[in-house]
Amino acid sequence: MTTENKNWSARFSQPLDEQVAVFNASIAFDRRLAQHDIKASLAHADMLAACNIISTEDNNAIANGLQQVAEEINNNTFNWQADDEDIHMSVERRLTELVGAAGKKLHTARSRNDQVATDLRLWLRDEIDTLQQHLRAARKALLAQAEHHADTLMPGFTHLQIAQPITFGHHLLAYEEMLNRDASRISDCRRRLNKLPLGSGALAGVGYPIDRARVAAALGFDGICENSMDAVSDRDFAIEFVSAAATLMMHLSRFCEELILWGSPAFSFVSLSDAFCTGSSIMPQKKNFDVPELIRGKCGRVFGALTALLVLGKSQPLAYNKDNQEDKEPLFDCVDTVNSCVSLIAPMVAAMTAKPDNMRKLLEVGYPTATELADYLVRRGLPFRDAHHAVSAIVQFAEAAGVGLEALTLEQIQQYAPLADEGALAALSATAAVERRNHIGGTAPAQVRAQVAKKQAELD
Amino acid sequence: MTTENKNWSARFSQPLDEQVAVFNASIAFDRRLAQHDIKASLAHADMLAACNIISTEDNNAIANGLQQVAEEINNNTFNWQADDEDIHMSVERRLTELVGAAGKKLHTARSRNDQVATDLRLWLRDEIDTLQQHLRAARKALLAQAEHHADTLMPGFTHLQIAQPITFGHHLLAYEEMLNRDASRISDCRRRLNKLPLGSGALAGVGYPIDRARVAAALGFDGICENSMDAVSDRDFAIEFVSAAATLMMHLSRFCEELILWGSPAFSFVSLSDAFCTGSSIMPQKKNFDVPELIRGKCGRVFGALTALLVLGKSQPLAYNKDNQEDKEPLFDCVDTVNSCVSLIAPMVAAMTAKPDNMRKLLEVGYPTATELADYLVRRGLPFRDAHHAVSAIVQFAEAAGVGLEALTLEQIQQYAPLADEGALAALSATAAVERRNHIGGTAPAQVRAQVAKKQAELD
Amino acid sequence: MTTENKNWSARFSQPLDEQVAVFNASIAFDRRLAQHDIKASLAHADMLAACNIISTEDNNAIANGLQQVAEEINNNTFNWQADDEDIHMSVERRLTELVGAAGKKLHTARSRNDQVATDLRLWLRDEIDTLQQHLRAARKALLAQAEHHADTLMPGFTHLQIAQPITFGHHLLAYEEMLNRDASRISDCRRRLNKLPLGSGALAGVGYPIDRARVAAALGFDGICENSMDAVSDRDFAIEFVSAAATLMMHLSRFCEELILWGSPAFSFVSLSDAFCTGSSIMPQKKNFDVPELIRGKCGRVFGALTALLVLGKSQPLAYNKDNQEDKEPLFDCVDTVNSCVSLIAPMVAAMTAKPDNMRKLLEVGYPTATELADYLVRRGLPFRDAHHAVSAIVQFAEAAGVGLEALTLEQIQQYAPLADEGALAALSATAAVERRNHIGGTAPAQVRAQVAKKQAELD
Amino acid sequence: MTTENKNWSARFSQPLDEQVAVFNASIAFDRRLAQHDIKASLAHADMLAACNIISTEDNNAIANGLQQVAEEINNNTFNWQADDEDIHMSVERRLTELVGAAGKKLHTARSRNDQVATDLRLWLRDEIDTLQQHLRAARKALLAQAEHHADTLMPGFTHLQIAQPITFGHHLLAYEEMLNRDASRISDCRRRLNKLPLGSGALAGVGYPIDRARVAAALGFDGICENSMDAVSDRDFAIEFVSAAATLMMHLSRFCEELILWGSPAFSFVSLSDAFCTGSSIMPQKKNFDVPELIRGKCGRVFGALTALLVLGKSQPLAYNKDNQEDKEPLFDCVDTVNSCVSLIAPMVAAMTAKPDNMRKLLEVGYPTATELADYLVRRGLPFRDAHHAVSAIVQFAEAAGVGLEALTLEQIQQYAPLADEGALAALSATAAVERRNHIGGTAPAQVRAQVAKKQAELD
Repeated sequence: MTTENKNWSARFSQPLDEQVAVFNASIAFDRRLAQHDIKASLAHADMLAACNIISTEDNNAIANGLQQVAEEINNNTFNWQADDEDIHMSVERRLTELVGAAGKKLHTARSRNDQVATDLRLWLRDEIDTLQQHLRAARKALLAQAEHHADTLMPGFTHLQIAQPITFGHHLLAYEEMLNRDASRISDCRRRLNKLPLGSGALAGVGYPIDRARVAAALGFDGICENSMDAVSDRDFAIEFVSAAATLMMHLSRFCEELILWGSPAFSFVSLSDAFCTGSSIMPQKKNFDVPELIRGKCGRVFGALTALLVLGKSQPLAYNKDNQEDKEPLFDCVDTVNSCVSLIAPMVAAMTAKPDNMRKLLEVGYPTATELADYLVRRGLPFRDAHHAVSAIVQFAEAAGVGLEALTLEQIQQYAPLADEGALAALSATAAVERRNHIGGTAPAQVRAQVAKKQAELD
Repeated sequence: MTTENKNWSARFSQPLDEQVAVFNASIAFDRRLAQHDIKASLAHADMLAACNIISTEDNNAIANGLQQVAEEINNNTFNWQADDEDIHMSVERRLTELVGAAGKKLHTARSRNDQVATDLRLWLRDEIDTLQQHLRAARKALLAQAEHHADTLMPGFTHLQIAQPITFGHHLLAYEEMLNRDASRISDCRRRLNKLPLGSGALAGVGYPIDRARVAAALGFDGICENSMDAVSDRDFAIEFVSAAATLMMHLSRFCEELILWGSPAFSFVSLSDAFCTGSSIMPQKKNFDVPELIRGKCGRVFGALTALLVLGKSQPLAYNKDNQEDKEPLFDCVDTVNSCVSLIAPMVAAMTAKPDNMRKLLEVGYPTATELADYLVRRGLPFRDAHHAVSAIVQFAEAAGVGLEALTLEQIQQYAPLADEGALAALSATAAVERRNHIGGTAPAQVRAQVAKKQAELD
Repeated sequence: MTTENKNWSARFSQPLDEQVAVFNASIAFDRRLAQHDIKASLAHADMLAACNIISTEDNNAIANGLQQVAEEINNNTFNWQADDEDIHMSVERRLTELVGAAGKKLHTARSRNDQVATDLRLWLRDEIDTLQQHLRAARKALLAQAEHHADTLMPGFTHLQIAQPITFGHHLLAYEEMLNRDASRISDCRRRLNKLPLGSGALAGVGYPIDRARVAAALGFDGICENSMDAVSDRDFAIEFVSAAATLMMHLSRFCEELILWGSPAFSFVSLSDAFCTGSSIMPQKKNFDVPELIRGKCGRVFGALTALLVLGKSQPLAYNKDNQEDKEPLFDCVDTVNSCVSLIAPMVAAMTAKPDNMRKLLEVGYPTATELADYLVRRGLPFRDAHHAVSAIVQFAEAAGVGLEALTLEQIQQYAPLADEGALAALSATAAVERRNHIGGTAPAQVRAQVAKKQAELD
Repeated sequence: MTTENKNWSARFSQPLDEQVAVFNASIAFDRRLAQHDIKASLAHADMLAACNIISTEDNNAIANGLQQVAEEINNNTFNWQADDEDIHMSVERRLTELVGAAGKKLHTARSRNDQVATDLRLWLRDEIDTLQQHLRAARKALLAQAEHHADTLMPGFTHLQIAQPITFGHHLLAYEEMLNRDASRISDCRRRLNKLPLGSGALAGVGYPIDRARVAAALGFDGICENSMDAVSDRDFAIEFVSAAATLMMHLSRFCEELILWGSPAFSFVSLSDAFCTGSSIMPQKKNFDVPELIRGKCGRVFGALTALLVLGKSQPLAYNKDNQEDKEPLFDCVDTVNSCVSLIAPMVAAMTAKPDNMRKLLEVGYPTATELADYLVRRGLPFRDAHHAVSAIVQFAEAAGVGLEALTLEQIQQYAPLADEGALAALSATAAVERRNHIGGTAPAQVRAQVAKKQAELD
């Protein structure tokens, strides 16, 4: 391969080294931007004609030619050539083959620097819209299970020790909250990215009387990048998206960790339908929760993409540098990862069956209503700190005796908490404990139902 | 040290290992939250009284006691004790010393889990407000220099090769754009964090008839965290802040890289006042740009804090786990780093003196107006791609001849571009080149002035 | 504060800005290097005298003076001054107060650039030696428990599903292997770092007839850094250490994750003595595994330090840049974190009590010897893949019947595996399963004992 | 696609969800391990026969079958099937098609867990060997240029300010030192990875009388993994490689940063042949240093892979979890990135032409021999700190006068340094300055030549 036919080669006395050409080329991965590149070129040419920078005939020729290029790519009949450096050069090369001189005019008043920034924003905007749909489906699936299990009692854990009784519905709603915030962050990211870089030229703007607002409107942008040097070198939108994606994956890793725990025979709180499990090549009995494990494992990959993009930007002087070609693969990989992971949440949540009996069984271990007893003593007039101290001693006594709190006699309780009366025993009910937490954010069934209703309304 | 006096110790038959006690304690760093912890406790106690959970007398005693604790801490007369686990226990211990039984009632209807989440949000909210002020000052300083240098010509670089003439003011405005986006992201973060976790208890809500809205209003929160399990384990607000800070530091690293380049004798585009430079212990002539170098160096530190916080969250099952104690130091370090770095930008930018002669001198190297010649040929009717090709050849000819484009004769130009007339030579003016880019985002002096005016209005 | 008394200030017409001085100073954290700085200065001065660059009298004065400085620092009587930039200037300032002109000669033939590189290597070398001791103790504690539990049966998990029976001793030995590799990596790191940078000057070497080998020998270095520009800017040793530490912390996070799981009532495989647990401020019954949780949480912090140091180095031109001042805090924090975490492993492992009954109980769930049945069928002549298929069907049958494999009749087994005879039932013994894996690396009790013996011998 | 033909499917009552099947499958990327997988299977089958676990006939059939599979893959005639989960199942499926029942015996006494760990080590070992060759070539290229420029004077920088005269050869040798350490780290990594996991089974070892030493010897391993649970879940070798690669890329980013600076017209210290540069789509005059920019940009990608792998391991309980499937893509990407970047260093260094005149010209700016003057005064008897102070003042005087040090008269010098005599002027020679640094690690031409000779000998 030589560079003789490169568009910039008249300046060079020696062809590009072959290994270098391969190293430099981005066509292997940026072809993914093809349709967005063409869309942006159509708007650009149309503006050039409207501003009398090219003729209407040229614009028509370009529009027809690009239409055909788009179809060839869609139909897999496009002839990708090894020495096309990138998607921009590929499209322009083919366009010129198809329409001649008009094709050579398309690159008037633009540079690949503002062009790729535009393509990437258009592409990411579409992917964000897809992700939001997946997030919505995932949240709806969580809401449906939460409603179904608004009354299902389970042990709530802190430090993986049994803490207090909660409802399974309430537990699931915690994840809906997280995904809700994720959606909100991604929506803010979309708002900030939705500005047009085209018109920034290589770095300084362009020396033609262009109309950037027209291009912005045609491409659905809400505004225009207001500094050309920033516009060609800015990749904040990619970093912001990947940051939000990293937090989202962290949330999914927590949910998947819990699914894996709940699916382990030690807990046996839920089962997943076979459609979400795989077996072992050696152990015939195995049924593994592969999907949550893989999602958990993919967390690092997205954190890695974030590291990659931040490091990429560090210490780069203005304006565009070739380093930025390295923005695409981490971003593409992150987008694909997040979209595939989130899209699996809804069906996986739907495929999950809770086992309330097992939840209830573990709730009997570990004195989960000790706090209720302390709160009861507070209502009887003891300062909380003293009540806490008394109940700690009661628990130690019960543990030594090898029984649960509900097996203690009132006399035994009174030894540590003289204020106690028969109400003490009633305080130990797990059902009463969850019902008592009937305030916004609390675990009471009524609150779970109210939250579900509110969230469903928001999502519709 | 033993744990005999620990608030939770009645349950334990063996004291905490001394090394473990040191390892577990967070008092060495979380005392930083003291004033916010007290502020939240005041609002909490006031609500408890309003809801008849404690008496008005107890609330008054608590309020007076906490007031004194706050003063003791402010005046450095507070007796920090080695075996206070954390700031919450420190304050409660001292409060109880001061006001007796009422102090033991403060922890009614709350847990350290929702308490620390509240403290941290209150603290970060204040730090964000400080950071926004620093950002505003930095942006104003950039705008002032940009206005001053709206007409100052300099070579614009891509790939650190001379690309096209730009104005120094335009170059500086690129950084204002970045800081503008940073401010916008941090503002979104503040909006999302400004919700009240208190009332979530340990994980399930609390078994008292509390009024969360009252506490939220008293503390200036815009809303209430709507799921208790999420609320006690969520650290998204910290991650989101550090993500935004990482991008901000990346921006500063770019600006500082340029300052360092511009201050190097190879460029000599700017000087910094001695107040921002330091010398060498061995080389008597040295004057180093230490401040931009340090800021550039601190970039990694903030990226590291981001990694730390994301990894912290990965795979944590609900609800609160002790892991989360590790959220504070990276967040504190990030906040301090970003605040100190951004606060230095305004005075450093003000202390910068441009050297337009040196900028102009380098502009004469490197054919920066070759694009102008190509655009001129386009206006003469040549398709852009052909014009680009012709000018490439002209540049190669000039380079071989060892002269700039402006030294070529019209005949020499016509050899490669027969369409050229005398206008070709006029096209090569750097001043005309920047003035021609008079559209939104372009480098023309008029645009720079318009941008400055618009941005200053926004900042006021 | 002004810079009038700064050692490099004669060149400057304006004092350093106060905020800048605070920002630039490293004395708040690099004072930690004081003793190593003094040690290196003693060797340096001694060499200068031996090479006749300073007089013997000056060397004696310096040696006595530095001795006193070292004592003052040790006794906390050293007068740290706010405007000492760094530890090097602090020590030299005090030395000159004590011994006059001789003190001003100490900095002959060196720079702070090679000085700090030397200090940091000396300091890290000592910390590595401490860490190796902690690792050795941790490994010994694991070996002791492994030996104690060489025969203790437990379910081995893959995907957190029960896979095959293993011995608890074998499980613990897996962690000894990891720590063994960690120690090996850290030892390689020490070998590579143990080279002398001093003599590199600011960047180019020094213009005096120095004897670097003498200094290297005095300080216990195995060699000399062979390129001065590399030597002053190289921080590979810090990165390599932190990389090894990151892997080590990842290992500890796995071990701690398992401790937390094993301590959860769902598993209840082990208990930890109260000395390693803490309680809750609200829930009187709680006993949390705080130490393993904190260690797991500190994993991110060390990953963050690694990110910080790698990013710090990225794109730095040679030779020394001020950015490198940022190497210390992440390194210090990483070293402290790793040393404190590893030092807790030995006592925590010793404080762990296994509960073999609970392990055994869970082993009865989940068909852990299905593989044994398949292997038995292989021995009877079935290709493994067919045996695997047959046993899968048998497991499905048993599951539908709600019984374990051992409850099946031979006839039931033969329905799926006609080759089976009475040996089939014998194959299902968990004890036999572990004993059968009696090869290097296998879980058989005999192998565990052999491994323990071999490892203990290596550690002694 | 259904899972009916999955090897583990007899246990499942419902086929795998199609989307899940795609999500779970690794065949799209792990096919890269095909040849190493086959190599390991050949050794495994041979051992099974030697240990009488399978018959000689079966082994022969397997060997012939695998040979054919290997060829089909090499010749691109292998029929990759969409529902092959991974490379192991692909190969076994095809083998069984070819040789029947013998193929179903290959998986006896092994699991995919130990199989993939073996494949990955074998593959990485080969890649490391390739990388070492690239590193050797890069180092030789640096040595050749260093020798060529042993006498070429240039300004040495610290803080990007001119510090002292150095030789270009010395500067280049700094990078050889870095790559030398990189090679050493990678070699240690190879030593640690070169142990056999096979024989570990799923997690517990295998229930057959295997001979692991035989397999290790056949595959060129130096030892055997000594704990089966560790062996199937350990990915330290990948992390260690990527850690070493991250440091290597950091080194390359520094070298590339310097190339980019040196190639900028502001410095113009070197040119690169056109074969390593590319042009602009818009600016006809541009010649960009794309290769060093891309390498610098790829730094983040490798840091990201390191983050990904460390995060992957965090908190994983033993033994194998599906998360580990995520180890491959970051490792593959890192290996490819590092190999392609390092392979370009040798030709790029060879394609670099230094411009000593420009180096010399910049050396005249910035008082680079001020240290020499101070050292001269030390030789005249002044304590270094006083000499430093005097020369600082002399520099300030010269700067105010707008001249270099060499333009000062002796009287002017004596005003600040009364001890000075005519020797002062001689001290200011840059050539003498570099020649004076004639000690190990110093910049003197003689030292450069000695280093080159020593290093070349080591490399041969």
